[in-house]
Amino acid sequence: MLGVREPAIYGSETLGDIEDSCRAAAPEFGLAVDFRQSNHEGELVSWIHEARDSADGIIINAGAYTHTSVAILDALTLAELPVIEVHLSNIYKRESFRHHSYISPIAAGVICGFGGQGYVLALEAMARLIGQTDE
Amino acid sequence: MLGVREPAIYGSETLGDIEDSCRAAAPEFGLAVDFRQSNHEGELVSWIHEARDSADGIIINAGAYTHTSVAILDALTLAELPVIEVHLSNIYKRESFRHHSYISPIAAGVICGFGGQGYVLALEAMARLIGQTDE
Amino acid sequence: MLGVREPAIYGSETLGDIEDSCRAAAPEFGLAVDFRQSNHEGELVSWIHEARDSADGIIINAGAYTHTSVAILDALTLAELPVIEVHLSNIYKRESFRHHSYISPIAAGVICGFGGQGYVLALEAMARLIGQTDE
Amino acid sequence: MLGVREPAIYGSETLGDIEDSCRAAAPEFGLAVDFRQSNHEGELVSWIHEARDSADGIIINAGAYTHTSVAILDALTLAELPVIEVHLSNIYKRESFRHHSYISPIAAGVICGFGGQGYVLALEAMARLIGQTDE
Amino acid sequence: MLGVREPAIYGSETLGDIEDSCRAAAPEFGLAVDFRQSNHEGELVSWIHEARDSADGIIINAGAYTHTSVAILDALTLAELPVIEVHLSNIYKRESFRHHSYISPIAAGVICGFGGQGYVLALEAMARLIGQTDE
Amino acid sequence: MLGVREPAIYGSETLGDIEDSCRAAAPEFGLAVDFRQSNHEGELVSWIHEARDSADGIIINAGAYTHTSVAILDALTLAELPVIEVHLSNIYKRESFRHHSYISPIAAGVICGFGGQGYVLALEAMARLIGQTDE
Amino acid sequence: MLGVREPAIYGSETLGDIEDSCRAAAPEFGLAVDFRQSNHEGELVSWIHEARDSADGIIINAGAYTHTSVAILDALTLAELPVIEVHLSNIYKRESFRHHSYISPIAAGVICGFGGQGYVLALEAMARLIGQTDE
Amino acid sequence: MLGVREPAIYGSETLGDIEDSCRAAAPEFGLAVDFRQSNHEGELVSWIHEARDSADGIIINAGAYTHTSVAILDALTLAELPVIEVHLSNIYKRESFRHHSYISPIAAGVICGFGGQGYVLALEAMARLIGQTDE
Amino acid sequence: MLGVREPAIYGSETLGDIEDSCRAAAPEFGLAVDFRQSNHEGELVSWIHEARDSADGIIINAGAYTHTSVAILDALTLAELPVIEVHLSNIYKRESFRHHSYISPIAAGVICGFGGQGYVLALEAMARLIGQTDE
Amino acid sequence: MLGVREPAIYGSETLGDIEDSCRAAAPEFGLAVDFRQSNHEGELVSWIHEARDSADGIIINAGAYTHTSVAILDALTLAELPVIEVHLSNIYKRESFRHHSYISPIAAGVICGFGGQGYVLALEAMARLIGQTDE
Amino acid sequence: MLGVREPAIYGSETLGDIEDSCRAAAPEFGLAVDFRQSNHEGELVSWIHEARDSADGIIINAGAYTHTSVAILDALTLAELPVIEVHLSNIYKRESFRHHSYISPIAAGVICGFGGQGYVLALEAMARLIGQTDE
Amino acid sequence: MLGVREPAIYGSETLGDIEDSCRAAAPEFGLAVDFRQSNHEGELVSWIHEARDSADGIIINAGAYTHTSVAILDALTLAELPVIEVHLSNIYKRESFRHHSYISPIAAGVICGFGGQGYVLALEAMARLIGQTDE
Repeated sequence: MLGVREPAIYGSETLGDIEDSCRAAAPEFGLAVDFRQSNHEGELVSWIHEARDSADGIIINAGAYTHTSVAILDALTLAELPVIEVHLSNIYKRESFRHHSYISPIAAGVICGFGGQGYVLALEAMARLIGQTDE
Repeated sequence: MLGVREPAIYGSETLGDIEDSCRAAAPEFGLAVDFRQSNHEGELVSWIHEARDSADGIIINAGAYTHTSVAILDALTLAELPVIEVHLSNIYKRESFRHHSYISPIAAGVICGFGGQGYVLALEAMARLIGQTDE
Repeated sequence: MLGVREPAIYGSETLGDIEDSCRAAAPEFGLAVDFRQSNHEGELVSWIHEARDSADGIIINAGAYTHTSVAILDALTLAELPVIEVHLSNIYKRESFRHHSYISPIAAGVICGFGGQGYVLALEAMARLIGQTDE
Repeated sequence: MLGVREPAIYGSETLGDIEDSCRAAAPEFGLAVDFRQSNHEGELVSWIHEARDSADGIIINAGAYTHTSVAILDALTLAELPVIEVHLSNIYKRESFRHHSYISPIAAGVICGFGGQGYVLALEAMARLIGQTDE
Repeated sequence: MLGVREPAIYGSETLGDIEDSCRAAAPEFGLAVDFRQSNHEGELVSWIHEARDSADGIIINAGAYTHTSVAILDALTLAELPVIEVHLSNIYKRESFRHHSYISPIAAGVICGFGGQGYVLALEAMARLIGQTDE
Repeated sequence: MLGVREPAIYGSETLGDIEDSCRAAAPEFGLAVDFRQSNHEGELVSWIHEARDSADGIIINAGAYTHTSVAILDALTLAELPVIEVHLSNIYKRESFRHHSYISPIAAGVICGFGGQGYVLALEAMARLIGQTDE
Repeated sequence: MLGVREPAIYGSETLGDIEDSCRAAAPEFGLAVDFRQSNHEGELVSWIHEARDSADGIIINAGAYTHTSVAILDALTLAELPVIEVHLSNIYKRESFRHHSYISPIAAGVICGFGGQGYVLALEAMARLIGQTDE
Repeated sequence: MLGVREPAIYGSETLGDIEDSCRAAAPEFGLAVDFRQSNHEGELVSWIHEARDSADGIIINAGAYTHTSVAILDALTLAELPVIEVHLSNIYKRESFRHHSYISPIAAGVICGFGGQGYVLALEAMARLIGQTDE
Repeated sequence: MLGVREPAIYGSETLGDIEDSCRAAAPEFGLAVDFRQSNHEGELVSWIHEARDSADGIIINAGAYTHTSVAILDALTLAELPVIEVHLSNIYKRESFRHHSYISPIAAGVICGFGGQGYVLALEAMARLIGQTDE
Repeated sequence: MLGVREPAIYGSETLGDIEDSCRAAAPEFGLAVDFRQSNHEGELVSWIHEARDSADGIIINAGAYTHTSVAILDALTLAELPVIEVHLSNIYKRESFRHHSYISPIAAGVICGFGGQGYVLALEAMARLIGQTDE
Repeated sequence: MLGVREPAIYGSETLGDIEDSCRAAAPEFGLAVDFRQSNHEGELVSWIHEARDSADGIIINAGAYTHTSVAILDALTLAELPVIEVHLSNIYKRESFRHHSYISPIAAGVICGFGGQGYVLALEAMARLIGQTDE
Repeated sequence: MLGVREPAIYGSETLGDIEDSCRAAAPEFGLAVDFRQSNHEGELVSWIHEARDSADGIIINAGAYTHTSVAILDALTLAELPVIEVHLSNIYKRESFRHHSYISPIAAGVICGFGGQGYVLALEAMARLIGQTDE
């Protein structure tokens, strides 16, 4: 399961390219992905609530909502699933208000700065997290 | 090249296990690794200065010095190499003084929370970073 | 009138249980209730605008938006109705970013920490507030 | 048991009116009340120590000491009884130094802004808290 | 192009009055206007994304979202269009949390405190900004 | 009346150009202008005291004194005239100590970022402010 | 009426000397004084409550409680009498936690740094304050 | 000697009235006064430098410069004379930036909130300060 | 002399046990002890004033007042006796508002975290402090 | 076991004197001591790692590193031994950056301000801590 | 060119001595000096504006205005000349509000703590700065 | 004596160039220099301890340790020698965490921003400092 919000494509990669890479890589790690994008904080919250029942883990790039949304934090906490936080760019190189993430304290781990490749690395890490949980 | 300081092994993995995983995975990504550990901030600084001439990239887990060492920041800046910051645990789940890293703003990317697997993911990301730079 | 957002049910009560308690208790205080729930900040804002004309008071549990939404604050201010803020849990026992509420300064009063019973207490208090205003 | 400090009567209610309402309402909830008022922080501390053995719960309006007294916090923590914090006025509408309460983090719940009615609501909530504990 | 969110009408002007003034004044400055209003942060974000292709500039009154929305900031940055920030009231006369705007640092300019007239002044300023860019 | 301090001319406009634009535009709005410039905080204070008797409004660009001068704030408050604050550049794009203005809280409105055109927009807004007051 | 707490006598003056000076000077200003001293915050609060009915004004040196007692602030506010705050020493020359007084914002005026003479000056000022109120 | 800056006359007293009261009261305390007023921080600095040689003490109301002028602080420190700080209004009732005075830490004492009478009280206190020094 | 306030007994020791240990150990160090406990800040202040004349040193555990009482700080400063601050628990392991002590800056030394044994260690240290002063 | 760093000898005691006192006192408490001193943070870290296997407790005076070293904190945490923090001087009397210790929150207790005697008191306290753990 | 403001002469040197040293040393470095002193911030601003056309560099001791004057910062930025900041005393040994300088971030370098000799060192450094720019 | 740590050479100068300039200039000022460089904080501390006996003054560029090392501050304080702090670059133009130096408050003076020339200026200033002390 992959709850994704992708507000900005940096450099030459498009959101489609990233989705393609993820769909290609997922089977390699024994995973199936559900890839979603929204501009609405409330819709992200609703998708996370849905994931509670239908997914084994959540990989999330909450974009700008990373820094402002307590609602997404609460939804992720309630979901009781392993969460991996991904950012295309290195948020610590940007404005100081982007250094704080409401999501990080409840995520299993964080990967940032590697563009679209970050999603593939997150799938690889998620495969082990889910395996650890199930076995 | 892999400049590493590993002050604490969490869970069942040992530092030797992590080194073994890295040495096993590196050739897969076309990389050779030099794996080092020290308790001395000054020694880490010296190794980073050496890496400037002998390595193509630095993967660093500066442990507690992450949060206090401007000297390591300065050495990494001078090295002019791609840097990936790794932490075994998710530092954002811990005390607030561990949320700030002097290294993050000059790193290409950050990976934290995935235990020893984080080093292997970092090698995979470094392989692409070096490729991007060289080609 | 009861504009409610209930993102998380703590303990054994469900949102349905709370709604039932409120519908049972309201007539006792001479009140009729309209019970709503949404994940969307904007929808909450719209409902508050509607309440301006159709309701005599607003009992609100804005969940996570309590701590981040100036838009809800502005809508409540414009509504010019008595407002009671309710929280299921005691927010002062939780993370420090939950100690601040944008709603409290414009509410008539605040009730928190009593689970679903808090809504019934709020209805009782609202009955007197509306009575005071009308008589 | 009701440890009360009431430094200021707002509007037309007097402290006597509030005590009368409480005494009238308590039997309705199966409670007996002990109603006290003092200007001395140390006396409040002593009464809370006494309540440890003689009462099933504490409803407290610590007035100005709410914002400054670590001693009352410590006494309440030692009492190991359910605590409900009451304020006649909505403290979040007042000066910012009144927004912080040393008591809230160890209270079961908080009720503020409803004048003397707040005490009656607190009795109602206390009845359930004690019931929950006992059954 | 005019992406507008207008949560509150101060004084005797209505939102319709302001829209009429803008439609009347726009041709004077050689501009055509598209006038929109929403309570949803996500909808504002989507409209700004659309404006990227269909408009020459954005005049925005983000209301309460001015102070909380990094998502709107990111959308405006991506739009790569001249932005003018308008507020009906003088936000610096109000609560201190309204003194900070996420939008101001990426706006060409800011106009606040002149009610509906502010929009007309913004159109006049936009006409010159677009002219400067095009010629 | 136009109390102006112009410490720096940005781009190709000179202070003379701005004065010419204002003198040309003022009659259009039924205004007469008195255009002054000084490097002395005390002189600005004195001019504002004079304006109290001789002018109907004050348009002020206090330059660097915007951020440091309580004396100018006090003089403007005593003048009891409508005040419009103008800045050539967008001060919110600059160092953080320039984001605070002592003048904004007592100004009718603020216009910044539009170069010399900002003065003409201010004259237009002042014409309406004075009209509103007089009629 | 003179509610005084005098924890420390600086230099050669004793508390008795100061009381003597005040008793000598009071008739000169047409005043009668009641001079009290206590180490108990609660007792000071009680005396202020009493003064509400029996005195025309309060001159207070709350000593260390100046910096910590919200209870004294609340009592003085309720007393609805003119209050003059006196300190023997200049508190702004001492530790920074002594620079804040809870009393100053509700006092008519403050006199500090003049030793025992400060009380006599306060009597002189109080005489005029009471006169202004009565006439 | 009396170095005075009086930017605002509150209530019915004028600056002339205050000067008259001081000139009338000074001989009573065996003092001669030199009464000055300026809008220029630099002029105040110069007068304080002059006072070093020609006066026995300085009574100063630095108005808005109280809160911003390190230059006046430095001049007063160099003057090595007893300094009394006077404010017509109680600055602790006003905006928080007026609560800090650069002058207070080097003043012998502070008197605020008593209007023009404050100057006469300051003369009385200065008479004793000078006497103490001389005898 | 031993001015003690003991609000909470941690673990199996009682206040009586601690008093017994102190009375047993004191003669070993050539000391006589006066052991007192109060919930009243004002009483502690008064006892410290008494100690000025009757004791050679003060060992104090001010409990919660450690963090809030400037009055106790002032009393201890006036006492001009060697002061040792004791805490049963390690206050640096607890809430951050317990990390600050008003007493520490004027104490000769601090001992915390050793339960009742801390008092005995304090007696041993006091014996040397008094010896140093007397010889 | 005694891991010590002693950067400065205050007064007439030398580091040798302190070591002598400790070696003399240790047998009295049934302890053997290993006394070490270094200027290198990394060496202190290494010694603490060694102590994990060879010692029953650590008494540490980390000198200036007390205030800056997260690495020593991490090493002490990993050692899983009782830790007593000692300072020769009372650090709360010195600059504010010395009031914070990274070590205190994980120490069993803290002793400061008693010069070399502090080490002997720490040995006495350690004897009981180890006894409590072992028995 | 040497724009100087010298509010206080420390120790035995006078302002005349310093000017003499500078005039004696300047030819050694191939420089001519223009030595000025003022108490007026506005006059310093005007001199800096003049220097823009008539000088090759500015050595400035802005005294107390160092810490408060954005106007001097703006004038120096506009001057587009190499700037050296000099202080007679070491400002980092004084009150914390003197540790911040508005000038330092735009200066080529800073020299403080060497009394009048600091000016001669600044001339020597300026000679090289101008040489670097010109050659 | 010259205790130097030089982590980074800016521009075309090398550390060797700077050492050569210093060795060439020192005799001119009647000084002999001992020039050292280390990456280890502990080694710098040890060298400063040595300098206590073997040198007349210390010129130090502590590089990154300037901002983090209390240990170096303590060593310099103990050395009781005149200290001059040098930085190649102007640290006030860089990140804000570089604006604070632990060394500045105990240095005689500070010189920054003049590259290698700064060391020669420091030698010149040191010559006078030592002369002043000796004569």
